[in-house]
Amino acid sequence: MSTDPAVTPANVPLLDHHCHGVTTGDLDRASFEALITESDWDAPEGTTHFDSQVGFAIRRHCAPVLGLEPFASAEAYLERRRELGGAEVSRRLLRATGISDYVIETGHKADEILDPDGMADAGQARAHEVVRLERLAEELIIGGCPASGFRAAFARVLDERRRHAIGVKSIAAYRIGLDFEPTRPAAADVDAAVLRWIDGGADAVRLDDPVIIRHLLWEAVERACAIQFHIGYGDADVDLHRCSPLLLTEFLRLTRASGARVMLLHCYPFHREAGYLAQVFPHVYFDVGLAINYTGSRSDDIIAESFELAPFHKILFSSDAWGAAELYHLGALLFRRGLARVLDTFAERDDWPEEERARVTELVAWRNARRAYRLDDPDGSDAR
Amino acid sequence: MSTDPAVTPANVPLLDHHCHGVTTGDLDRASFEALITESDWDAPEGTTHFDSQVGFAIRRHCAPVLGLEPFASAEAYLERRRELGGAEVSRRLLRATGISDYVIETGHKADEILDPDGMADAGQARAHEVVRLERLAEELIIGGCPASGFRAAFARVLDERRRHAIGVKSIAAYRIGLDFEPTRPAAADVDAAVLRWIDGGADAVRLDDPVIIRHLLWEAVERACAIQFHIGYGDADVDLHRCSPLLLTEFLRLTRASGARVMLLHCYPFHREAGYLAQVFPHVYFDVGLAINYTGSRSDDIIAESFELAPFHKILFSSDAWGAAELYHLGALLFRRGLARVLDTFAERDDWPEEERARVTELVAWRNARRAYRLDDPDGSDAR
Amino acid sequence: MSTDPAVTPANVPLLDHHCHGVTTGDLDRASFEALITESDWDAPEGTTHFDSQVGFAIRRHCAPVLGLEPFASAEAYLERRRELGGAEVSRRLLRATGISDYVIETGHKADEILDPDGMADAGQARAHEVVRLERLAEELIIGGCPASGFRAAFARVLDERRRHAIGVKSIAAYRIGLDFEPTRPAAADVDAAVLRWIDGGADAVRLDDPVIIRHLLWEAVERACAIQFHIGYGDADVDLHRCSPLLLTEFLRLTRASGARVMLLHCYPFHREAGYLAQVFPHVYFDVGLAINYTGSRSDDIIAESFELAPFHKILFSSDAWGAAELYHLGALLFRRGLARVLDTFAERDDWPEEERARVTELVAWRNARRAYRLDDPDGSDAR
Repeated sequence: MSTDPAVTPANVPLLDHHCHGVTTGDLDRASFEALITESDWDAPEGTTHFDSQVGFAIRRHCAPVLGLEPFASAEAYLERRRELGGAEVSRRLLRATGISDYVIETGHKADEILDPDGMADAGQARAHEVVRLERLAEELIIGGCPASGFRAAFARVLDERRRHAIGVKSIAAYRIGLDFEPTRPAAADVDAAVLRWIDGGADAVRLDDPVIIRHLLWEAVERACAIQFHIGYGDADVDLHRCSPLLLTEFLRLTRASGARVMLLHCYPFHREAGYLAQVFPHVYFDVGLAINYTGSRSDDIIAESFELAPFHKILFSSDAWGAAELYHLGALLFRRGLARVLDTFAERDDWPEEERARVTELVAWRNARRAYRLDDPDGSDAR
Repeated sequence: MSTDPAVTPANVPLLDHHCHGVTTGDLDRASFEALITESDWDAPEGTTHFDSQVGFAIRRHCAPVLGLEPFASAEAYLERRRELGGAEVSRRLLRATGISDYVIETGHKADEILDPDGMADAGQARAHEVVRLERLAEELIIGGCPASGFRAAFARVLDERRRHAIGVKSIAAYRIGLDFEPTRPAAADVDAAVLRWIDGGADAVRLDDPVIIRHLLWEAVERACAIQFHIGYGDADVDLHRCSPLLLTEFLRLTRASGARVMLLHCYPFHREAGYLAQVFPHVYFDVGLAINYTGSRSDDIIAESFELAPFHKILFSSDAWGAAELYHLGALLFRRGLARVLDTFAERDDWPEEERARVTELVAWRNARRAYRLDDPDGSDAR
Repeated sequence: MSTDPAVTPANVPLLDHHCHGVTTGDLDRASFEALITESDWDAPEGTTHFDSQVGFAIRRHCAPVLGLEPFASAEAYLERRRELGGAEVSRRLLRATGISDYVIETGHKADEILDPDGMADAGQARAHEVVRLERLAEELIIGGCPASGFRAAFARVLDERRRHAIGVKSIAAYRIGLDFEPTRPAAADVDAAVLRWIDGGADAVRLDDPVIIRHLLWEAVERACAIQFHIGYGDADVDLHRCSPLLLTEFLRLTRASGARVMLLHCYPFHREAGYLAQVFPHVYFDVGLAINYTGSRSDDIIAESFELAPFHKILFSSDAWGAAELYHLGALLFRRGLARVLDTFAERDDWPEEERARVTELVAWRNARRAYRLDDPDGSDAR
C-alpha cells in the first residue's frame, strides 16, 4: 500500500461511505429550507433556516458553483436554483465534489430521491448500496409476511439484497435507543414479537420493537456484514441522550470476533466517545459526517477532534447528505478543508512529513472504507 | 430588520437575558471569594479562589476599572474595593458593560441583592423581571396557603406576577433533575403532593416534589410563557449528570406547539447538546452565560463551540451574574471579545461579509432575546 | 510559597502523580504494539497501532532520543530498540523527561514491570507508592483470609501499606461503574458479600462486588487518604458510559469534610466535567494524563480544555504510563508543550504576566500534588 506524496486533501478522491440519494426536483423556498435543517418545522416567524452555519456555507460555497457571487442572498440563490432546474443544480454540485464513490443508504423516503444508478449518473461516480435493516423488515410485514415465516423470509431477503449491497444500516438509535439489550434474542421471542407487531395493525408498520431489531442486527452480525449505526445528532425524533455510541459497548464486545464491522455514523456530539471505541475495538470505525456540513465554519474544529484517540486506519469520510445536493457538496468541500487544516497543524506542531500526511489523507479519504467494506475482495461483497 | 454594518461586538448594546441582582455591600475577603466561585466552601488551606480563570480575569480586567494596574494582587484589589465602597464599585463595573437591558431573576436570596429597579439605577439600563416558579410556590406555602387552594392560588399569583415579568424560570435541574416525567400531572395528584409537602413541616419549605414542579411548569406552558431552565454547570448542590438539556427532549416535543419558548441557560458542558436542541425545536433558545465569566481566558473557545448546530437566531447572551459586579462586567467583556473572535475566524475561513457579521452580532446581542421574550409586542408581555 | 519567574513549562520539574512501572524487557513488535494502545487486540489486518497519534509521536519524539531521525519507520524504531536493549531504552527515555517524582500504582501486573525502587533507579528520580485497594483485598482472599476476618485484616494491611504509600487507588470504574451507591455499607453486609465472594471459587478472585468495593473506599475515606479514581478513558474492559466523574457527585458530598482528597485520573472525554467537580468540591483534584500521550498532536487542545472551570490549584500532572517508557516520555514532553502553549495563549489574550505563568506552572507541575498528597507533612504520609 503505497501513497503518492503528491496526494493532498484537495486532490484525493473521496469515498462517501454514508449518504442517501439527491433530489432533482425544483424546490420552492419552504421545501429547500426543510432540507437544510434537521428540524421538522419552519424556523420561527421572522427567521430563516438560512441563518445557520449550513445556510451561510451554502451562500458562500454553493452560490459560486451556480454562477453567483459568494454570499448571494437566499432569495437570489433560490431564484438561480429554479432557473437552472433541480437536476442541473444537482449535477453541478455533485460533480464538483471529487467524490468517486457514493455508498447510498436507500431506506428513507426512497421515492423522493435518486436511486444508486441515478446517483452514479448525476455524480459521474460509482455508487454502492447499503440496506436499512428496519426498512427491510417493514417491507416484509407490509407485503403480508406472516409471523411464523418472518425469520426465514428476513434471512432470505437479506441474503438477496446483500448480493448487491456492501453493507447494512440500522436506525436502532431512532427506534429503540442504543441502550438496547445487546445479546441475540431467542427465536421464539422474535416470533412472538413479530406476532404482536402484526397484530398492532396499520399504524404499527413502523418497527420499534427491541426484540425484532436486535434480531435484525444479529442476522447481520452472523453474516459478518459491515453494519452502519446511526449515532448522535439527527432530527427531533431521536432521543439524543440515548444515542451515545458508548451504549453499544457490550454489543461491541459480543461482536468483536464475528467478522462484522461496525461503522458509527456522524457521532456528534459524541465523536470523542466514538474515537475511543474505534481505538479499543478492532472492528469499529467512525465518521463525523453530518456534523461537517451542518457546522460549516466550525467544522474544522470538529474534524480536528475526530483525530484524537481513533487510529488513523479507523476514521472514515461521509457526507450523510439526503436530498439537497448542497449537503454533498459542502460535506466534501469542508471535509477536504478541515483535513488539510488539521494535517497542517500536526505538521506545524510535530513536523508530520509530507508523505505521512499524504498517507493519512488516503486512509481517511477512501482506503479505510475500501478495506472496511471489503471492496477489493474478489467476490465484491462483504461476505467472509 | 436591517442592521447598520458598523455594528460590532464591541459597540453593540447587550441584552443580558438572565442575571440576578448585584450586591452593593462592602465585602471582606471571605465574602468576596465566596462570590467568585460556584463552590460553597473555602478554597483549601494555602490556596485561594482567586487562582482561577475568573480570579485572573478580575485582576486583569476589573482592576483597571477601579483605577488599578492590570493584574493587581488580590489584596490590592480588595483594598481598593473597600476604599471605593461596594455601591460605587458596582456602578463603575456595571456601567462599563454596555448592557442596555438586564433581565433579572429575583428568586434567589433577593434580600441580599438589588432588585430590578435598583439594578436599572446602578447600571443605568432597563431592567426586566423573570419570576422563579419554585420560589413562587414556596412563598404561597410559607404564607399559609392550604393544599386545597394551592392550584388556584398559584395560577392567580403567576398571572399577577406576569403583568410585570417577561418570563419565568425553573430550577427543576436543582430540585428534581431534568429527567422528570415530562407530561402534565393530574390535578388530583398535584393536590395530594401539595398536602404531603405541607405536612412535611418547616424543613420542607424547599420545594423538591416532581409532581408539583411539573405542575408549575405546565402552568407556565399553558400561558405560553418564556421559560428559562437552569441547565448544566452550577454549584455543588446540582447533580450535573442529571442536567443535560437532552433530558428535556420529550418535554420539548410536548410543548413545541404551545406558544411557550424554552431558554436553556448556561448549558456548559452540555452546550453542544443545547445547540442541537436549538436547531431541531423551533421554540428552544440557549446561551453559555455562566461559562463565559467563569472560564475567562478560555471563554473564546466555548463561545465558538456555541456557534455550531444552533441557528444564529437562537443564540442568546447572558452573564448569569449574581452578587459580584465583576461577573456582569466580565460576562459582557468576554462575550464581546469571544463573539468578535469567532466572527473574525469565520470571516477568515469563509469570508463572512461585514454586514453579515454585524447582523449576526445584533441577533445574538439583543434581537433574538427581544423576539423570544416578545418585548416588542404591543402589550409588552409574553402573553399570546 | 514564592516562585522564580524564570520557571517555565520547559524547565520545571514534574511530579507524575499517577503512573505504573516501566518494562525493561526486550520487546518484539507485537508486544510493543500492545503497549501503545488501550486495545486488547491486534490492529486489523493490514494496519498497525503505530498509525495513531501515540504511534506518530513515538516516531517523532522518541526516535531522536534513541539516536534516530525523527519519523524513523516503525521497523527502524523497533530495531533500534532491540539494539539498545529494553533497560537502556527505558533509562534514556525516562531520564529525558525531567520527572523528579514518580507516584507509582503497583496493583496491575506488578511482576512484569519495575517496582518503585527500580523506577527511582531507572529514572534517577524519587519514587512514591500508591496502593490499589481492590488488589489489596484480592490478595487477602488469595491468601486464604476468611470472611469473618476480612474487615479486620483489610484494615490492618491498609494501615501497614500506608506507612510507605502516599495514597490509594480505586478501579471501581472498571469493576462496578462509578454509579455505585455512595454510602458506607453496613459491616454485616460487607461480611456477607465477602462470604459470597469466597464461595464464588477460583474464578471469583477478581473483586467486582459493589458492597465490598464501597467498604474499601470508605476505609480509605476514614483514614483521610488521598484516593485516586480511574475516570473515563481506559481499555475495552471499561464501560465508559458509567465512568463520568459526575457519577461520584454524591460520594464527593459525603466525603467532603472527611480529610480525604479525591484525585480524578485521566477523565477524557469527561475532563470538563472533572474540572467542574474540582471547582465546587474543595477536596477534588484532577488530571488529563492518559489523554495526553495518547492524543499526541491534539494533546495541546485537551490540556487547554482542562484549564476552564478547575482552579489552578487543583490541576495535576500525570502520565498514567504503564510498561512502555515512551508513554512517560511523551506524557512529560507533551504536557510541557501543551502547558506552554496554553499559557502563551492566555498571555496573548489576557496579558498573563510572566510571574503568574511561572507560578501556575509550578502549581500544576508539582506544588498542587505535594500539597494534595501532603508530601511536606512532618510525618511524610497522608495521615491526618
